Amino acid sequence: MAVIPMWQCDRDGSMFADKKAAEEHDRMLELAECLTGFLQNHLTLEDDAAEGIGLLLARNKELLAKALKGKPDVLLESQPEAEEA
Amino acid sequence: MAVIPMWQCDRDGSMFADKKAAEEHDRMLELAECLTGFLQNHLTLEDDAAEGIGLLLARNKELLAKALKGKPDVLLESQPEAEEA
Repeated sequence: MAVIPMWQCDRDGSMFADKKAAEEHDRMLELAECLTGFLQNHLTLEDDAAEGIGLLLARNKELLAKALKGKPDVLLESQPEAEEA
Repeated sequence: MAVIPMWQCDRDGSMFADKKAAEEHDRMLELAECLTGFLQNHLTLEDDAAEGIGLLLARNKELLAKALKGKPDVLLESQPEAEEA
């Protein structure tokens, strides 16, 4: 039988067959952690609320970037997916 | 006596002697509102928490843009100013 190379993201243990996808996932989680840390540096927020917000923002990075570049209303067009409430 | 033109931002009533500054402030508040709406579309958040986060992110728009462009750690270098906790 063959052995197949897999890539594990050590931030959350998720596995990927494709290295690029694993790296992208890792960058997204890093951004989420930094956003969470930023929020908690400036505001009083429960850990899970801050983590949920950091993850939500990091997952919607492209949308956020568009909003920051002068199209804030794109944020209101986006519909919830299966988000942790 | 002279009469001096002033510009009022109708989102929060703040007054500006300079039109450009008033417009910039208005754009910042619009972004804050859209961020708040986005967060509440996706997560269960109290109004004031969502508003505080929307305002914090909008006020730090440049920092956020840098983080989204691949430098997430700039977010952790920023120190709290007089923020509403």
